[in-house]
Amino acid sequence: MDAQLRRHIEVHLPNYLEGLKRLCRQPSVAAQSHGVHECAELVRQMLQDLSFRAQVLPTRDPRYPVVYAERAGRSPRTLLFYNHFDVQPAEPLELWESPPFEPQERDGRVFARGVSDDKGHLAARLAALEALLTVQGDLPCTVKFCIEGAEEIGSPGFAEFVEEHRDLLKADVCVWEGGSVDWRGDPEIALGLKGILYVELEVRSASRDSHSSYATVVPNPAWRLVWALSTLKDQQERVLIPGFYDAVRPPTALEREAVAKMPADDEQLKQELGVKRFLKGLRGQDYLQRHLFEPTCTICGMESGYTGEGTKTVLPATARAKVDFRLVPHQRPEDILEKLKAHLAARGFSDVTVKAADGENPSRTAMDSPFVELVRKTAREVFGREPVLVPTSAGSGPMYCISEGLGLPIASFGVGSPTDKIHAPNENVQVANFLKGVLHVAELLVQFGKG
Amino acid sequence: MDAQLRRHIEVHLPNYLEGLKRLCRQPSVAAQSHGVHECAELVRQMLQDLSFRAQVLPTRDPRYPVVYAERAGRSPRTLLFYNHFDVQPAEPLELWESPPFEPQERDGRVFARGVSDDKGHLAARLAALEALLTVQGDLPCTVKFCIEGAEEIGSPGFAEFVEEHRDLLKADVCVWEGGSVDWRGDPEIALGLKGILYVELEVRSASRDSHSSYATVVPNPAWRLVWALSTLKDQQERVLIPGFYDAVRPPTALEREAVAKMPADDEQLKQELGVKRFLKGLRGQDYLQRHLFEPTCTICGMESGYTGEGTKTVLPATARAKVDFRLVPHQRPEDILEKLKAHLAARGFSDVTVKAADGENPSRTAMDSPFVELVRKTAREVFGREPVLVPTSAGSGPMYCISEGLGLPIASFGVGSPTDKIHAPNENVQVANFLKGVLHVAELLVQFGKG
Repeated sequence: MDAQLRRHIEVHLPNYLEGLKRLCRQPSVAAQSHGVHECAELVRQMLQDLSFRAQVLPTRDPRYPVVYAERAGRSPRTLLFYNHFDVQPAEPLELWESPPFEPQERDGRVFARGVSDDKGHLAARLAALEALLTVQGDLPCTVKFCIEGAEEIGSPGFAEFVEEHRDLLKADVCVWEGGSVDWRGDPEIALGLKGILYVELEVRSASRDSHSSYATVVPNPAWRLVWALSTLKDQQERVLIPGFYDAVRPPTALEREAVAKMPADDEQLKQELGVKRFLKGLRGQDYLQRHLFEPTCTICGMESGYTGEGTKTVLPATARAKVDFRLVPHQRPEDILEKLKAHLAARGFSDVTVKAADGENPSRTAMDSPFVELVRKTAREVFGREPVLVPTSAGSGPMYCISEGLGLPIASFGVGSPTDKIHAPNENVQVANFLKGVLHVAELLVQFGKG
Repeated sequence: MDAQLRRHIEVHLPNYLEGLKRLCRQPSVAAQSHGVHECAELVRQMLQDLSFRAQVLPTRDPRYPVVYAERAGRSPRTLLFYNHFDVQPAEPLELWESPPFEPQERDGRVFARGVSDDKGHLAARLAALEALLTVQGDLPCTVKFCIEGAEEIGSPGFAEFVEEHRDLLKADVCVWEGGSVDWRGDPEIALGLKGILYVELEVRSASRDSHSSYATVVPNPAWRLVWALSTLKDQQERVLIPGFYDAVRPPTALEREAVAKMPADDEQLKQELGVKRFLKGLRGQDYLQRHLFEPTCTICGMESGYTGEGTKTVLPATARAKVDFRLVPHQRPEDILEKLKAHLAARGFSDVTVKAADGENPSRTAMDSPFVELVRKTAREVFGREPVLVPTSAGSGPMYCISEGLGLPIASFGVGSPTDKIHAPNENVQVANFLKGVLHVAELLVQFGKG
């Protein structure tokens, strides 16, 4: 890597961290419509400060704009960055050691909601661009940004946005929102995401709560919900919705081999999460293969009746559950939703209403793509360690809109680590990883421009 | 009824309602330890104002004192009143039309938490005593009060209190906390209560919430709780805990006949609760017999994970449910608790912890007791309508401590109505019923003193 470029980045790290904190100070919780537009404008301004043509564009839902930006470089080859500026809700607030929207640096980490998912990755990319522009005067290739504001709630309207802006988003390759080093410190390069379907189930059986002595005759929505949920998955973790697994294609040999080369981080993960034993006692490779290639059905939340202190003998009037399904190729959220509804109806749960958020398809990029090789090579040079190719992450996102929709190879990598506590209290990012991430993006752009 | 006594009561109704409001202004939520001691002192003061020897006595739990009071009368025959001054939590607060602890009179009703359950009944008894003392100069019989402060949380320590104060509580008959007219306006006299067991089930599978993509391998306490709950009762409302029904004795012929004379209030009840159809489509007598004679298993509340607005893809670390069991003769809460624990263990749910509040036994007084006949006769005279004998209420309370423990016949009647919304927002009592309740107690004491 060019010594002057490296030195510039290392010297200006404090400025780059200040940029990251500036992003984190601005709340942007899509689920609660908290600060989303303000954050879009902040991101647009930061890109304009780097002389990008930057604009805030509407999606079909006025609550969730997209920031689009581009700047031509020495080479016409075009790299598209996908990021998101929205974050998960910060609750439960009482478990944070410092306030979620007041970034704090301690023990070599920066703590804030969204600092790892996904503002850290965005800030590192902006930092790499600043360095290239200052040191070289221009960019080695053409760079585009597409930064959405509703990734954490399933990217409503993003698929249509991409479809409607095919020309604007035209590129040769795409770098996805982010990634992390593994437990050993080796950089991961992920090539796929799971899909997702998120539903809310609700049962309402009376106009008000009543005294629990009426349980002899008054239907209890909590029981109805419990019974309905218990028909969705058995205790061996098999989803019982008829046809749920029909569209699942088993992983390819290349994908299985790539996973076989990955370190099994099960012991670290168990410690990190405070879990004694994984489901079915899975360990090592068995754990990894299941974690990456299996679809899931998860109760994310449920609520009914009295949940305060002490006892209250009440018969609830309503019960609600939030459930997500993580999907693998070639499952489709709209198909799973129909099967879920049909299953509930067939099992006699027509009193359980199903409200679905927009779903997302799963996505995979071919493991032998030349762009994947370039990302791997530059990561190896910057980190001084052999990168780990990950056929798919266990998480979800609208990757398919661009991989399928625009036909681009996509690689995802970034500044995270397995201990970042994304989606949880005390989310953080390590300063050392952030620095390496800036270096990697800068070097990738240099070599991509030459290619 | 003596005309002077009746007139005194009718003229002083506004004073008696002021006494009721004074009681309701004092919060006394046992489940939240809110105002319990202050309310005990208020009740003691109000009894002392009637020249009762009144004292606040401790139970084994210092949070829940009992108010005991007595005053000798012309006859040594002794009537014991059981009441409770504690109330249910007022939540959900946003559904109250006027604040729960600021009693408001409108449309012929007084609205406040506890105004029907149980402060209205207590205030009516104090009012009858005031009238007798003012009009007659003394009481027709000896009167004792035992007023506890933890009925709504299952009366912890009350059974021991009664056992330890057998001499103090010595009496010939007992009038229980309260009762109501039925949907037609006929006064009900109830002779029994169901027992109760209240438990909290909890599952904890990790030290913190995690990203829901880990649902492939990380145990989900919400699923564990749903599966465990689903083994407790089937969709035909049959409790599945082995041995649950073993101790149930079927209702006697007299009890069944009494219920057969009761009006079936199912249509009114459905309208009041906003329920379209009762369980199993029960109506009329089928509904009544089941409602009064069947034990129940009820989810009173449950909570896990994210229950706020929008979507959050989180895997919860804990899940909790509150469950109550209403018991009939001769089920025993400690026996049901053991069977519940054994069932969960046998079904592989050793990860579900069970925490039980103190339980209560069911209770029944013989339908042909002379005291029951006296209560019926005086009610008929005051209300001008034939009273309805109810072999048992569907609710619970520590009646067995006195019926079994002290061997007293017990009748329960009072100032309530089926639309009082006890345990729910906008609890209220009708002023017209309150007045009749005062008259009835006064006349009963007069005739009991003669007998």
